[in-house]
Amino acid sequence: MFVPSDLRAAVSDQAWLTAMLEAERALASAEATVGLIPARVAGPIAERCRPGLFDAEQLAAAGRTAGTPVEPLVRRLTELVGGEAAGYVHWGATSQDIMDSAAMLVTRRALDLILGRLDTVAGSCAGLAEAYRTTPMAARTLLQQAVPTSFGLKAAGWLNATLDARERVADLSARRLAAQLGGAAGTLSALGEHWPAVTREYARELGLAEPELPWHSDRGRVAEIGAGLAVAAGTMAKIGRDVVLLSQVEVGEVVEAAAGGSSTMPQKRNPVSATLAIACARNARAQAGVLLEALEAEHERAAGAWQAEWPALSGALAATGGAADAVARSLHGLVVRPERMAENLAAGGGLIMAERVAYLLAPERGRLAARDVVAAAAARTHEGASFRDALAADPQVGLSHAELDVALDPAGALGAAPELVDRALARHRALKGGAA
Amino acid sequence: MFVPSDLRAAVSDQAWLTAMLEAERALASAEATVGLIPARVAGPIAERCRPGLFDAEQLAAAGRTAGTPVEPLVRRLTELVGGEAAGYVHWGATSQDIMDSAAMLVTRRALDLILGRLDTVAGSCAGLAEAYRTTPMAARTLLQQAVPTSFGLKAAGWLNATLDARERVADLSARRLAAQLGGAAGTLSALGEHWPAVTREYARELGLAEPELPWHSDRGRVAEIGAGLAVAAGTMAKIGRDVVLLSQVEVGEVVEAAAGGSSTMPQKRNPVSATLAIACARNARAQAGVLLEALEAEHERAAGAWQAEWPALSGALAATGGAADAVARSLHGLVVRPERMAENLAAGGGLIMAERVAYLLAPERGRLAARDVVAAAAARTHEGASFRDALAADPQVGLSHAELDVALDPAGALGAAPELVDRALARHRALKGGAA
Amino acid sequence: MFVPSDLRAAVSDQAWLTAMLEAERALASAEATVGLIPARVAGPIAERCRPGLFDAEQLAAAGRTAGTPVEPLVRRLTELVGGEAAGYVHWGATSQDIMDSAAMLVTRRALDLILGRLDTVAGSCAGLAEAYRTTPMAARTLLQQAVPTSFGLKAAGWLNATLDARERVADLSARRLAAQLGGAAGTLSALGEHWPAVTREYARELGLAEPELPWHSDRGRVAEIGAGLAVAAGTMAKIGRDVVLLSQVEVGEVVEAAAGGSSTMPQKRNPVSATLAIACARNARAQAGVLLEALEAEHERAAGAWQAEWPALSGALAATGGAADAVARSLHGLVVRPERMAENLAAGGGLIMAERVAYLLAPERGRLAARDVVAAAAARTHEGASFRDALAADPQVGLSHAELDVALDPAGALGAAPELVDRALARHRALKGGAA
Amino acid sequence: MFVPSDLRAAVSDQAWLTAMLEAERALASAEATVGLIPARVAGPIAERCRPGLFDAEQLAAAGRTAGTPVEPLVRRLTELVGGEAAGYVHWGATSQDIMDSAAMLVTRRALDLILGRLDTVAGSCAGLAEAYRTTPMAARTLLQQAVPTSFGLKAAGWLNATLDARERVADLSARRLAAQLGGAAGTLSALGEHWPAVTREYARELGLAEPELPWHSDRGRVAEIGAGLAVAAGTMAKIGRDVVLLSQVEVGEVVEAAAGGSSTMPQKRNPVSATLAIACARNARAQAGVLLEALEAEHERAAGAWQAEWPALSGALAATGGAADAVARSLHGLVVRPERMAENLAAGGGLIMAERVAYLLAPERGRLAARDVVAAAAARTHEGASFRDALAADPQVGLSHAELDVALDPAGALGAAPELVDRALARHRALKGGAA
Repeated sequence: MFVPSDLRAAVSDQAWLTAMLEAERALASAEATVGLIPARVAGPIAERCRPGLFDAEQLAAAGRTAGTPVEPLVRRLTELVGGEAAGYVHWGATSQDIMDSAAMLVTRRALDLILGRLDTVAGSCAGLAEAYRTTPMAARTLLQQAVPTSFGLKAAGWLNATLDARERVADLSARRLAAQLGGAAGTLSALGEHWPAVTREYARELGLAEPELPWHSDRGRVAEIGAGLAVAAGTMAKIGRDVVLLSQVEVGEVVEAAAGGSSTMPQKRNPVSATLAIACARNARAQAGVLLEALEAEHERAAGAWQAEWPALSGALAATGGAADAVARSLHGLVVRPERMAENLAAGGGLIMAERVAYLLAPERGRLAARDVVAAAAARTHEGASFRDALAADPQVGLSHAELDVALDPAGALGAAPELVDRALARHRALKGGAA
Repeated sequence: MFVPSDLRAAVSDQAWLTAMLEAERALASAEATVGLIPARVAGPIAERCRPGLFDAEQLAAAGRTAGTPVEPLVRRLTELVGGEAAGYVHWGATSQDIMDSAAMLVTRRALDLILGRLDTVAGSCAGLAEAYRTTPMAARTLLQQAVPTSFGLKAAGWLNATLDARERVADLSARRLAAQLGGAAGTLSALGEHWPAVTREYARELGLAEPELPWHSDRGRVAEIGAGLAVAAGTMAKIGRDVVLLSQVEVGEVVEAAAGGSSTMPQKRNPVSATLAIACARNARAQAGVLLEALEAEHERAAGAWQAEWPALSGALAATGGAADAVARSLHGLVVRPERMAENLAAGGGLIMAERVAYLLAPERGRLAARDVVAAAAARTHEGASFRDALAADPQVGLSHAELDVALDPAGALGAAPELVDRALARHRALKGGAA
Repeated sequence: MFVPSDLRAAVSDQAWLTAMLEAERALASAEATVGLIPARVAGPIAERCRPGLFDAEQLAAAGRTAGTPVEPLVRRLTELVGGEAAGYVHWGATSQDIMDSAAMLVTRRALDLILGRLDTVAGSCAGLAEAYRTTPMAARTLLQQAVPTSFGLKAAGWLNATLDARERVADLSARRLAAQLGGAAGTLSALGEHWPAVTREYARELGLAEPELPWHSDRGRVAEIGAGLAVAAGTMAKIGRDVVLLSQVEVGEVVEAAAGGSSTMPQKRNPVSATLAIACARNARAQAGVLLEALEAEHERAAGAWQAEWPALSGALAATGGAADAVARSLHGLVVRPERMAENLAAGGGLIMAERVAYLLAPERGRLAARDVVAAAAARTHEGASFRDALAADPQVGLSHAELDVALDPAGALGAAPELVDRALARHRALKGGAA
Repeated sequence: MFVPSDLRAAVSDQAWLTAMLEAERALASAEATVGLIPARVAGPIAERCRPGLFDAEQLAAAGRTAGTPVEPLVRRLTELVGGEAAGYVHWGATSQDIMDSAAMLVTRRALDLILGRLDTVAGSCAGLAEAYRTTPMAARTLLQQAVPTSFGLKAAGWLNATLDARERVADLSARRLAAQLGGAAGTLSALGEHWPAVTREYARELGLAEPELPWHSDRGRVAEIGAGLAVAAGTMAKIGRDVVLLSQVEVGEVVEAAAGGSSTMPQKRNPVSATLAIACARNARAQAGVLLEALEAEHERAAGAWQAEWPALSGALAATGGAADAVARSLHGLVVRPERMAENLAAGGGLIMAERVAYLLAPERGRLAARDVVAAAAARTHEGASFRDALAADPQVGLSHAELDVALDPAGALGAAPELVDRALARHRALKGGAA
């Protein structure tokens, strides 16, 4: 329910069927090109590699008996082709060649959709980072107000993490998606001397990299795709989590533009998209775990681990896309409330400036001693005193009222926040420039 | 692809929709019964709680905005009911009440299907245990031949583990599936003084247990269901793994009756069902992990963890059912080859009897010293000697030829295997009797 | 660092060594009792089963070669015993018998420590539930203020979940911890006809249940222990998460009595214990996953899965204990601030009462229409109006000022909260009575 | 118990303490260099950053109260330094700066140890690949004999996967280990205008990369380290799994040189190291899961997720190292038995050549029809006929005895295996050359 329809389609049974047929077509075409099979049969085979001629549901049912849907698909394709060309369908290949190559095609398309969402997310983060570059808000560590920061820096952190995730996913897409052709068990024996030419041409036809070796039971690339998706999804969950926390009524610093209503509570403005991002990310990570587990593969084709990859890969792609899509919606038009940020900064009566005060005293007293003096003043606020009064009353502090005014002003304590925002924005611009 | 169609249906969007409507109907009915809402409105509401009047896909799409499909479902149901009764739809409830109760209904139905499969598996295991109670085969530890056992005992071990899993799943179904009704956030405030009667009646209508407290953010029962499914699925994977290993060409002790063919290798008799059981179990365990993770739920309704439960629960149920179904098919008509078992026992030249020989010497020499003497003889077989000859030639062994004949006969060394088989069969009979 | 020292000790190498020796002692004793080995050897063997005579580090190193530490332990024990009795050390057993039985002993002791912590947690929750039975606070769903509840009900929810977890752990401890004795591969062949008596007596000596069958490769009980620990730890994380959220400066409804300071921020009062509970729970869940994965065990002893259990079991026990210990510390003396709860309830200008207002209008307008009218009024507050004014100004609402006063008072809207608290407290008292 | 002592030491409490002190030293040094603090204080601080002056256990205990061990460490260090310099200890930093930087230092050292093991593994694989480049053995898919391959190609597959894992780990070590310095919450506010110089110099002192932004709550790099470790460990498990399977008595194609004995079975030659590799990999993957989960980090420092990273990171590093070390031992001197490989190839009576026979018929009949003809002949072998006889008797096959001799000879059917071996060896040589 959380996955947008284009991503659902990209990993659907239909998408897998289409990709499997693309692999069969590429195989015949490559083999005809290099002269392993007669040139005249490639056309008739390609002609029948049309998904509309196949029933995905039927193949899945038959696939339960064969252990893969490829066996019945090849049988059906051979029937459809007929004549001499039928004899050359699936020549030299095994089911796993078709499934694994199809998995790569499905993955590539889904990764493209995911990258598009990550770009949207990055764009929104960049917009927020720029707009709120110097808007003071409370930084929070262990969910406690810590020191001032700017909302721009928070958004810049989201941006930077999203760009990392994007780079990693793009790199997987560019470098780790490889065609798979190994024949029955990785020796390509039915291709004879043509094997190097066929594998090269097959990869070229599919637009996938040619691997060093067939990877029937070297599942590193699939595991890495899983890991990359889990990292990307987890990055989306981080943004979602922050939005959920900032949206709390008591915090109130952001509101999703399309916050969700409740079936019973009229006032509710739920951060629905941020919430769904978190939900999706958990499902993505779980599926990625199956892909990492599949590395322990037996001999030349695993019994169980490999078959578990198919739904897990689809699931991880869909859920990661769902997470990125949800964050894109969450940040789209996000209502940001600098006035609530200011109120919250002030709510602790200046306690959030405690570190800054301590550093004013530190050159004279030493850092730790200064911290302890200010900590004692802070502790007195728990008995009702204002922090300012507690500081003013403490001879160990010894700051004038004017000095206290400066010390307790959050806007003057953003540190490197604006410049760090600029760094993230520059990186974003550079990547966008590179992508354009 | 691996999940049988009845289980797929049981966790489908349609099944969830049906269950949600059942919860809405039960709610109105319970409230009318206890006099919270007018008795005359229950009928018209129940009348419209028909899945055919709703579009599951549309609700899912709308649910992405609201965060749950219940909000749009309630809106649509209210429209459909019309008139005075419309005003009492979803009275006193919140979306989570409906989703969680629906989850329990979906779970109960899926658990029933899973229990049916586990029963079939248990029946097959019992049949094998009985038929091969004293059929000698090699027990294998760390995949090395260890000592003789009987195939019956191996099957009895499968049986016993399956009965454990079955008991646990049945117990979850009987005791941990509870109705959920807490109102907006667990205080049932809109039910007024009627709350105890409504919650009792609502649970009764749904055929679910009434919980101590509303469990909006106490996800223990869902986590336990996940854990129980992971255990049941893992138990199926254990059987599947053994079948895969016993089916190896070099071992050849069993063959699946409907072993699968390859798209390219004509001789292949792949243990497809056992393989798919392993694959399903991994997916089930991954989804169960999401349910365990959801325990860390914020306040009165989690943001992310709860929403992640829905696909994970459906997925865990389907995959566990898929695993049990696959094992049922794997064991159905399983071809067992006692002659290959005997050959394999003999293949090590009697080495598998080494422990038994050691125990013959142990009373005189001490257990460890005897083990070491026999280990030395065993080591000599790696240089080509037969184990029997190595033993016969060793004065430290000192067994006559007749004694060696007895010592090296696997059939005489089954130990407690037959009686242990009987124990498992007795338990199975007792449970079947109880279930009948 | 997060695990209390008693739990660290309970799962240490030394604890495992002690437990392994206890198993060896029990084995000899049981066998002597039933007459399988001479009665006179049990004493000398028991005499040497003292951990002080062994070097845990050395055994671990030697165990890397043998695959278990039991092999070198048996060798050393045999040496230490000497004479006739040496010949009867480890009679009829295999390494796994000793490791698995030791694992159960280690688990039992660690579970006792965990149960003690859970009892403390339950006691604290009960105290809070009772003390704040009718103290109004905001219930929060998706981290948004929802409707009023009482802090007592929140604590009662923690209590109820903790009691569930406690029951489950106690049940595992009572019913699923079983002695393991199967001999080389589960047939007990070296025990001859004495096997039923030996296994019964061995279990009795160890104070563990006697299993139906040896469970070398039926890892259900270990997996269930893992699952039970993950559920208990996750329950602790739920409490920890709530405490962290309630401790936020902007919420400020609780403060840990021993809140932690920062190395640099003088004002910080970090909810350290709640934080560590969350951290521990995640580690516990990860380790439990390894135990669930181990169900897929090959033949009569798994190669890899079984060995992975040892650190995972220790880790899961320690981390669960760490989580429970951290929650116990978090709740000990927890500072609760009813005044902040009241302020937060009021902060939304009465919006949290929106559902209640809607139900006042519902009998006349219908539930959903009433909800929508109130939602419209709530929406107007986002343009600056107070909720009360927005309601008062709306003719569709039509409530008098006096009616609005009542409607907008949270204290009058606790619903079933107090009675639900009583239910949880009654359960707690009943269990304590039972335990006493 | 499975982790070699150098790796245990590399992730020990002592190693963390050493690394934290290194971070404190580097901080003071960097700040003195750029003129933020007096140049004269760096020496006295560095002088006291000696692990011998601290008690790791005491710090851990105190750390339970503070939530990190850094707070008590800074307090102790300040005491030890004394005088003016004491006032500049930990200047401008927060606990997380020190913990995270220390984590990176610990990781770098552990990764070096892991890389060393992976190199050893790669070297062994390369040796096997070269030595057995054309040694025929059965390729096995779904654990069924499939077609011939060479043992060299199997080893080349291990090699190629190990090189992938090695590259990925090396890349993480080179590019993703970054210094962390953000001050209280990522704004570096206490460093004033010196922040760019200090962060640059601090990273340089530590020999770590300088990150774009402080990464307090952007946990991508830690998650990627976890993922990389899980992939590396899983790759080791794949090799371990193959060795365990090839070591089966019924297969007997390899034996570990230091195969382990049993405490009771004298003949056992357990593939202990391969088994422990599998066990370690599972623990590594579980810990990596915690690191992936930690991505969902709240605000500027996570409450729970971050603290969970410490044991998980140490655990993942140790377990991955343990897995690689175990595989290194497993392959060291591995006994390879070409004669058993030949026997196993022959054991199926030529069935393993079925695909090859089918391809001989394919040009005339078409691939699928030929496959089906040969499948029918193969099926007849299950009734006792030899495959050769079944083929010879079938007019649809129509091969002469001489043609059958060629068709059924595995040695002539290695396909691309030798050239694929050469590819992997060339890659290995190139990488070794690069590393040298």
